[in-house]
Amino acid sequence: MADFDLMRELAQDRGGKIILLVMDGLGGLPDGPDHLTELEAAATPHMDRLAREGSAGLSIPIGHGITPGSGPAHLAMFGYDPRTYVIGRGVLEAFGIGMAGGEEDVAARGNFCTLDEDGLIVDRRAGRIPTEEGEKLCELLSTIEIPGVETEVRAVKEYRFALALRGAGLDPHLADTDPQQTGKPPLPVVALRPAAERTAGLVQAWTEQARALLADHHPANGFTLRGFSSDPNLPKYEELYKLRAACVAVYPMYKGVSTLVGMDVLPSDPDDTAADQFKRVGQAWERYDFFFVHIKYTDSRGEDGDYQAKVEEIEKVDAALPILTALAPDVLIITGDHSTPTRLRTHSWHPVPTLLWAPGNHRRGAAEGFGETECLRGSLGWVPATELMPLALAHAGRLAKYGA
Amino acid sequence: MADFDLMRELAQDRGGKIILLVMDGLGGLPDGPDHLTELEAAATPHMDRLAREGSAGLSIPIGHGITPGSGPAHLAMFGYDPRTYVIGRGVLEAFGIGMAGGEEDVAARGNFCTLDEDGLIVDRRAGRIPTEEGEKLCELLSTIEIPGVETEVRAVKEYRFALALRGAGLDPHLADTDPQQTGKPPLPVVALRPAAERTAGLVQAWTEQARALLADHHPANGFTLRGFSSDPNLPKYEELYKLRAACVAVYPMYKGVSTLVGMDVLPSDPDDTAADQFKRVGQAWERYDFFFVHIKYTDSRGEDGDYQAKVEEIEKVDAALPILTALAPDVLIITGDHSTPTRLRTHSWHPVPTLLWAPGNHRRGAAEGFGETECLRGSLGWVPATELMPLALAHAGRLAKYGA
Repeated sequence: MADFDLMRELAQDRGGKIILLVMDGLGGLPDGPDHLTELEAAATPHMDRLAREGSAGLSIPIGHGITPGSGPAHLAMFGYDPRTYVIGRGVLEAFGIGMAGGEEDVAARGNFCTLDEDGLIVDRRAGRIPTEEGEKLCELLSTIEIPGVETEVRAVKEYRFALALRGAGLDPHLADTDPQQTGKPPLPVVALRPAAERTAGLVQAWTEQARALLADHHPANGFTLRGFSSDPNLPKYEELYKLRAACVAVYPMYKGVSTLVGMDVLPSDPDDTAADQFKRVGQAWERYDFFFVHIKYTDSRGEDGDYQAKVEEIEKVDAALPILTALAPDVLIITGDHSTPTRLRTHSWHPVPTLLWAPGNHRRGAAEGFGETECLRGSLGWVPATELMPLALAHAGRLAKYGA
Repeated sequence: MADFDLMRELAQDRGGKIILLVMDGLGGLPDGPDHLTELEAAATPHMDRLAREGSAGLSIPIGHGITPGSGPAHLAMFGYDPRTYVIGRGVLEAFGIGMAGGEEDVAARGNFCTLDEDGLIVDRRAGRIPTEEGEKLCELLSTIEIPGVETEVRAVKEYRFALALRGAGLDPHLADTDPQQTGKPPLPVVALRPAAERTAGLVQAWTEQARALLADHHPANGFTLRGFSSDPNLPKYEELYKLRAACVAVYPMYKGVSTLVGMDVLPSDPDDTAADQFKRVGQAWERYDFFFVHIKYTDSRGEDGDYQAKVEEIEKVDAALPILTALAPDVLIITGDHSTPTRLRTHSWHPVPTLLWAPGNHRRGAAEGFGETECLRGSLGWVPATELMPLALAHAGRLAKYGA
């Protein structure tokens, strides 16, 4: 990972502005009529120019052959070794919807589900109830009172919600209550170590009240809880890199991981296009040194297995790119958190095409455009994703010399 | 860093001879009329041939994005992780001018400076007095006697000198007395930990006598001390790599770091050209297994920002190269300790063009010459600078097989 001792020693609060543009799941595999990856098939004149002028290469999210989830993949791009810094899904979800709390709080992800008369799960997603319905149910659950702890429940989207427990002496080492299959009842709340017994009891008490309140709310007459976790108290961008950093993302989990590393989450709208997101960067341009922009739909179309749709998502980003470059960032990095080849319909381990553009500050390579094969010939080479932040800081003139 | 346990286990005292030729600050950035780096623009027929025949690549001095000082950069090339093995500037300076001493001795760098009537610094370099003047002042300071400790003072160059304290129970954890700006007095000698209190007292006593002796020697009527340090007791080349090693360098600090890793420093003259330095290798050829040759002026011209002058320094080295190759080394590595692009006028983080030539012992790459872009296509690939020594030993047939 980025050497945090060195970063703390060398990073200085002056120098240029940095944009990290992440197209989720960007990397692909040869496919389609011309046997090109999605990025290679896409018409991306702006990125091609940046790859020619700048430094192109391939980044390795976690390690050779390792397929990352989005959480670890983002941590890595932010410079944190995800094997050292582990973030629970519950706290990621909670922070993603703005439920930041104290370091001792415990958060979990919840799914409303449908139970039959025997209490067995028949639909793990409660028929994908609309978000408004989920919000009403969360209001109902907010009336629960448990002595000795404060609770907060908030809807995320459709059947998903987040639960937070706030108080002293809480311990997040609890097992999921989701049996991961239908035909079984939600599991009881179980402590994974003795210190978590009290917390398990509090969550069990909450669960019993909640089950009673939901009984008449078929198809959302039950729920499961997963990913119990607390704020991992990560080093923050300002302390670590001397950067005032902002996040422009549409999906909660990317906002969550950004919040956990100390970025401000800028306002966004669920329907924001890439162009809208880039404009939001412009609106906040003077207030920050670093912008993380997260584009979700490249990954979504990859997971759908829709080659042409992923190509088009990439093209939309490229078409909007002049909005970002017009801001004249000192460093612009374009990459993905991992690969999501449409022919695999899922995340993969393949290295991610990456370009670093920092006018006047980089070598020439031989890449003639932005794509997996061209990136093999670029001057960025092969780089662990965790090294992108030191490179960004260096190219922005924000790192002092090491030793005399 | 090089795996020292493996080196100790596998290195054998037989095999070929190795030359490590370091052009300080070799790496550059595209610039000049043809948008080429300094190395690319230079006419280097000999190095181009070696790059074609040999193994070309790029070395990373410390880490991605990290700009090294010369001390850490050289340690890395010698195989030592500079984050593990830290050398103080005082001991580096002292060893560089041949003041090697015991492991408990404490050394510091001194600058003569000019004080006004209130004792405030008005010139931190004492008007850059000539070296001969500095030598006379050091003779004067050598008359100081402090009970309980021996002191040695030697001129380095112009206004610079080195001070060594020799005795038992000394501790180098003292703060610099240089306030780093004019208009302030030199700082008192302060211990950074209790164990250094006695040493602080000794240095303070020396300082008071020295101040009195210098009072009438305007513009060198004061001084500051920096970089208090002791011999870090690094593993030595002979024990680690089974190499009798020699250093050919003109500047003291490179002699210092070489001495600290156990190299013999060969005689040199401050006016030595690259050709002179190469001839010195030839004169000692039979006595050593390994030669480190340090060329300073590539870095100096880089720091001057003089593109054409750096190009010419590289060309001088190339023109003299047949003197080295005529010695028929088994392994010749040509690299830099770091990059010093003339357009940045300072050290930088960019990877360093590197070639390893070991006839009959290496792969073919596609590099057609020695330059930053061609090195992207070479068979050496991207390599941490700390791995150059294991590679040199291997190509010289000096490393046994690991395991059966």
